[in-house]
Amino acid sequence: MMSAAPAAAPLPASAPVAVVGAGAMGAGIAQVAALAGHPVRLLDNRPGAAAKAVDELRATLAKLAAKGKLDAAQADAAASRLTAVASLDALADAALVVEAIVENLEAKRALFRDLEARVGEHCLFGTNTSSISVTAIAAGLARPERLAGLHFFNPAPLMALVEIVSGLATDPAVAATLFATAAAWGKTPVHARSTPGFIVNRVARPYYAEALRLVSEGAADTATLDALYREAGGFRMGPFELMDLIGHDVNFAVTSSVWKAYYHDPRFTPSLVQEELVNAGYLGRKSGRGFYAYGEGATPAAPASAAPAPCPATITLFGASSAANALAQRLGAAGVAHGRSPAADDGRLAEADGAVLYVTDGRTATRRAAESGVAATVLIDLALDYASAPRLALAGALQCPEAARTAAIGLLQAAGFAVAELADVPGLALMRTVAMLANEAADAVNQGVCSPDAVDAAMRLGTNYPCGPLAWAERIGPAAVVAVLGHLAATYGEDRYRISPFLQQRVHAGKDLH
Amino acid sequence: MMSAAPAAAPLPASAPVAVVGAGAMGAGIAQVAALAGHPVRLLDNRPGAAAKAVDELRATLAKLAAKGKLDAAQADAAASRLTAVASLDALADAALVVEAIVENLEAKRALFRDLEARVGEHCLFGTNTSSISVTAIAAGLARPERLAGLHFFNPAPLMALVEIVSGLATDPAVAATLFATAAAWGKTPVHARSTPGFIVNRVARPYYAEALRLVSEGAADTATLDALYREAGGFRMGPFELMDLIGHDVNFAVTSSVWKAYYHDPRFTPSLVQEELVNAGYLGRKSGRGFYAYGEGATPAAPASAAPAPCPATITLFGASSAANALAQRLGAAGVAHGRSPAADDGRLAEADGAVLYVTDGRTATRRAAESGVAATVLIDLALDYASAPRLALAGALQCPEAARTAAIGLLQAAGFAVAELADVPGLALMRTVAMLANEAADAVNQGVCSPDAVDAAMRLGTNYPCGPLAWAERIGPAAVVAVLGHLAATYGEDRYRISPFLQQRVHAGKDLH
Amino acid sequence: MMSAAPAAAPLPASAPVAVVGAGAMGAGIAQVAALAGHPVRLLDNRPGAAAKAVDELRATLAKLAAKGKLDAAQADAAASRLTAVASLDALADAALVVEAIVENLEAKRALFRDLEARVGEHCLFGTNTSSISVTAIAAGLARPERLAGLHFFNPAPLMALVEIVSGLATDPAVAATLFATAAAWGKTPVHARSTPGFIVNRVARPYYAEALRLVSEGAADTATLDALYREAGGFRMGPFELMDLIGHDVNFAVTSSVWKAYYHDPRFTPSLVQEELVNAGYLGRKSGRGFYAYGEGATPAAPASAAPAPCPATITLFGASSAANALAQRLGAAGVAHGRSPAADDGRLAEADGAVLYVTDGRTATRRAAESGVAATVLIDLALDYASAPRLALAGALQCPEAARTAAIGLLQAAGFAVAELADVPGLALMRTVAMLANEAADAVNQGVCSPDAVDAAMRLGTNYPCGPLAWAERIGPAAVVAVLGHLAATYGEDRYRISPFLQQRVHAGKDLH
Repeated sequence: MMSAAPAAAPLPASAPVAVVGAGAMGAGIAQVAALAGHPVRLLDNRPGAAAKAVDELRATLAKLAAKGKLDAAQADAAASRLTAVASLDALADAALVVEAIVENLEAKRALFRDLEARVGEHCLFGTNTSSISVTAIAAGLARPERLAGLHFFNPAPLMALVEIVSGLATDPAVAATLFATAAAWGKTPVHARSTPGFIVNRVARPYYAEALRLVSEGAADTATLDALYREAGGFRMGPFELMDLIGHDVNFAVTSSVWKAYYHDPRFTPSLVQEELVNAGYLGRKSGRGFYAYGEGATPAAPASAAPAPCPATITLFGASSAANALAQRLGAAGVAHGRSPAADDGRLAEADGAVLYVTDGRTATRRAAESGVAATVLIDLALDYASAPRLALAGALQCPEAARTAAIGLLQAAGFAVAELADVPGLALMRTVAMLANEAADAVNQGVCSPDAVDAAMRLGTNYPCGPLAWAERIGPAAVVAVLGHLAATYGEDRYRISPFLQQRVHAGKDLH
Repeated sequence: MMSAAPAAAPLPASAPVAVVGAGAMGAGIAQVAALAGHPVRLLDNRPGAAAKAVDELRATLAKLAAKGKLDAAQADAAASRLTAVASLDALADAALVVEAIVENLEAKRALFRDLEARVGEHCLFGTNTSSISVTAIAAGLARPERLAGLHFFNPAPLMALVEIVSGLATDPAVAATLFATAAAWGKTPVHARSTPGFIVNRVARPYYAEALRLVSEGAADTATLDALYREAGGFRMGPFELMDLIGHDVNFAVTSSVWKAYYHDPRFTPSLVQEELVNAGYLGRKSGRGFYAYGEGATPAAPASAAPAPCPATITLFGASSAANALAQRLGAAGVAHGRSPAADDGRLAEADGAVLYVTDGRTATRRAAESGVAATVLIDLALDYASAPRLALAGALQCPEAARTAAIGLLQAAGFAVAELADVPGLALMRTVAMLANEAADAVNQGVCSPDAVDAAMRLGTNYPCGPLAWAERIGPAAVVAVLGHLAATYGEDRYRISPFLQQRVHAGKDLH
Repeated sequence: MMSAAPAAAPLPASAPVAVVGAGAMGAGIAQVAALAGHPVRLLDNRPGAAAKAVDELRATLAKLAAKGKLDAAQADAAASRLTAVASLDALADAALVVEAIVENLEAKRALFRDLEARVGEHCLFGTNTSSISVTAIAAGLARPERLAGLHFFNPAPLMALVEIVSGLATDPAVAATLFATAAAWGKTPVHARSTPGFIVNRVARPYYAEALRLVSEGAADTATLDALYREAGGFRMGPFELMDLIGHDVNFAVTSSVWKAYYHDPRFTPSLVQEELVNAGYLGRKSGRGFYAYGEGATPAAPASAAPAPCPATITLFGASSAANALAQRLGAAGVAHGRSPAADDGRLAEADGAVLYVTDGRTATRRAAESGVAATVLIDLALDYASAPRLALAGALQCPEAARTAAIGLLQAAGFAVAELADVPGLALMRTVAMLANEAADAVNQGVCSPDAVDAAMRLGTNYPCGPLAWAERIGPAAVVAVLGHLAATYGEDRYRISPFLQQRVHAGKDLH
């Protein structure tokens, strides 16, 4: 596991900070550092680019002041701290150089070698790489221990997360100083060990991967799934609309790169669905078509919701799980009569006119019905909060009588849910996605990439997830998450769904995940 | 799953059809279209090639008429409908252009782009590619929706199958028209979604892969296995002689290509046995040596059959499975006394002088004997039809006494089987091969590549299998096939043997596979 | 399985032997052949290299005679048998040509083609390749059957092992003659079928792979693990110091090459830990830094040993396993009172003031404690010989009270062990490493690469392991090894830990492994 990093003081605000690379990331980082009080030198090897960026940053600061988002004096002061410089020699007094140039190992190595000949002994080096080994970037330096990853997210002034990435040679004291400095700049830094994808670009893979599997297995159409991720899962964007925004060429390239870097670990195997989008040139918003059509005349795809079904005549809720309590509260608020009953041996959540509802445990409804003998099995999906979610998914067993399926839909509708009826895939949609996100987070912890707290913070702040994956798994219950993963693994028979040893160990020990 | 395609009318016989590429496939397709009544323009960018092909086609048609295989007037009419043309401009009036040029994405894209500038708005495009994404071929066209795969098999005039392959942009109405047109041409079309290998080149992989595993694990020599596939399995050619015919360079390249396209899915992992044949230059018939030696003086390899063993003194058959009934009938016909007994708890098929015979369930005989405590366990392999097969394989447990093994052989010989005694590999030969063919067929269905009926038709007509893989699995019993696969997976511990979710789901639901 | 090779006579000592390639391997082979009595012609295409090598060999022989390691007359005679030659024509009378040139397929093929035009009909060809398919090297020869691999290990005069590698075309009689000849030269030859890594370079992979997994999962630091492999395992060098010696660039390249050659079999997946060392330029001893720092001022890393713990007040040993007997003997020798008790149902090895000790069965202590309800579970690792090992590893369950953990440590210390306390990883360190070595050895046997005896001899002589992997598995008990592997597979859920069918089959049959 990641050992605790030493505490350290941040660089003083008076210490000059250099940023090399005046693109969107470099300019954003320069803005952050200037607002934090540092004299900032901005350099770019494209003639005029640094000066143009400084001009734009000053305009941005003025606009923020005009809008009242920044104190005018503060904005002026920050603007005055920004200087465009024309050569590496002008960075000689920097206490920290942040590299944000092209994503190319040789270019970065050459830059740092050139810098090493010019800056002082105590100058720290940060690279904003998102995909290259920090260890490899530092190799060849006389003092590789002074270099770490300083991975801001786009747009840097707005996104709170900074991954502080230690390569093999990075001095823990250097990482600690950069951590403290990022915090002093108003960011939320997390420590990470240099491994492919660091934290966010690795742990986020299942959000896309599970969604792509669901659509390739015909669980539902993309608009229905996107609505589910948003309205039941609390995600800001569904995975398909998000991939359309990112661009399928970009997302497919990142997935392929992580997959290769992990020696074709099946957890990261790319999807043919996405490759075909790239083959077709359907790259997403930027090309006018991806999963969805954009541009003039395109009508947004609407999620499918089950047609209104009658409210069941008799409803019984079992136990006092958060799902059962939320259903009781929602039915009560709607004035729908229902009974309560103690928890049942088979974990059923509800009965409604012959239908038996369970929260998915990773088995298909059909398999669960075959194993339990309860033909009228209907499974419901995970929701971030069953009390407030406007939408919920369910799936019935192939053996389930039509009337029972309708009753289950009627129950959820009576409780105020829009209902997404999915094909009977294992683990439904949100449950398997969240389980796999937690699994990947756990594996990052197990391999010493980061701490449990770091991975949760990184995913909340780096991807806007409504909840950190490990915290979410704790809400569901680690043993339930392990059961879901175990059933996915049994159904698919693929290493892709193997359970992280960290999760297993915590469940065996009866401990939580933090 | 593949959704049902709309019905459509075929192109009228009067509609001009263009074929680009006058190689074996293009010429064959031209012949088929001309016989169906279409005016056909044949084009090839090699000077003179189209004219030569038309001459040859006319000679072929005349020969077929001379042999009485075609009506003379029909042959003459078809011949008169064939025209060699010299430029794309001559294809302007085509209602359908079938591309059968070199297997190269850029060449195909360029051709269709050039065509699009010349043909009419309603002209359809078909590509005869066997290995390139139809989606990728269509990308860049102004109207990619008019292009689909039209995958004939070699020789096109004789092979009934045509895969109608829809890319991401293909208009379902276009695919439906091509489907109806291929049917009007006397072919059996099947719909497929564009994925690596389409249907046939994907689903056929296990026929080679399992055979290669068997020989690499020393189950038997290739001649013994080939005879088994033919005489017990009803395959027209055994896998080794078939690979020798295809050429190991070609077959290894196809396997490698499918494996890479599926992101190294272990179901498609190539075999070192085949790679070594390629390394050695033992490419099969065409090089004079492959698994077998060819050419002058080469003696065909003979299958090993067990030496004649005495007929057991006492034989009891259990239950009324098709295997038991067939054995009873064969023993009766041979005048061999035997008893019948109700089905036994452990599923035994027969007892013979101390030997206990079972049909393989995917476990080795040795493991089954260890788990059941029946040391004298002898397993028999699958046959397409136990009543008529001239050959059958068996394998005894390592614990099995020699006398019991001999008794089992004697029983099968008394029933008229030539007996192939295999090493005790899991699932023996035919059972595991057919189980894996059915598994791959099921996965194609599960991923929405095609319907169950389509995959069965494609494999019967595209590869001459004696039975479609899913229909065969239904004859065996889907639950028995799932058991075999489950035991293979447990023995090998490889994702390669994972069970398709489609098969599992059908068994859990108690439904058949169509 | 590898079929038994025919017996054959060695080449007579009077038969001329040619060695092509006068590098370290070629020169060493020439020395061996000359000492065995053969006239030896040494050829190298670098001008003067062969003559220089002969001079050096003569000096070496004289030095060995001076040191009394060789009889002076014998050394003189061998020296006189060595001749440097300048062209292939001078090899015309060779009865055997051993190729030891650059590791490049085309170069080797060209050499053998050139040789074939010059040497006699009965001349044998041996290639000293360590990584190229022998089949591929022989392809294109008029008589590929006369070529085999003759894989000496470095330094050839000292290392006893020679792998006699048969390609697809190799005549078994040729392999048999080379086998007999290598034996006549004082070597221990083993037969192998040409497959990636042959025997040694394949079967040794888990020694590195498991060690790298252990460190990446935080089991212990490298110095602690190295000490454990040496002092509990009897290995001459621990895996980390050995990799530092070999060079991480070299070892990573070999691992990557074997992994690719086996179509990315997860058994051979490289480690990010090693890739990062290569990324950093920490290549091992030769670069001054690897897992350890070298050079002036570097202090050797010391293994961590548990602090002295008090001797438990009450100690009971269960059963009469070799571990129990060894503990009893060691405690007795140290004058520590302890009781003996019959074997317990749960296989416990010892109790000590509340702690319950077991030998690892592949489960983590935490999982085992959860499943058994014995919270105070402490697992001990494998030792080559519990009676004499100076060091032993243990790991406690997360549920285990501190006092019990201390008692377990105290027990082992009282028995004279230095104690390495590991994190609670499955299978601890030595047990999982030896189980995986045995598993790989078994798979080589299962795939017909070599016999059980050959793989054991190869690993003892080619890598200096204290015991052949299959012999070691027999000491542990094949069923226990299968259990360890099964638990590793269940914990990790990776095909990497699948159990070789050969091991399973032997255990089911109740047979040993040879």
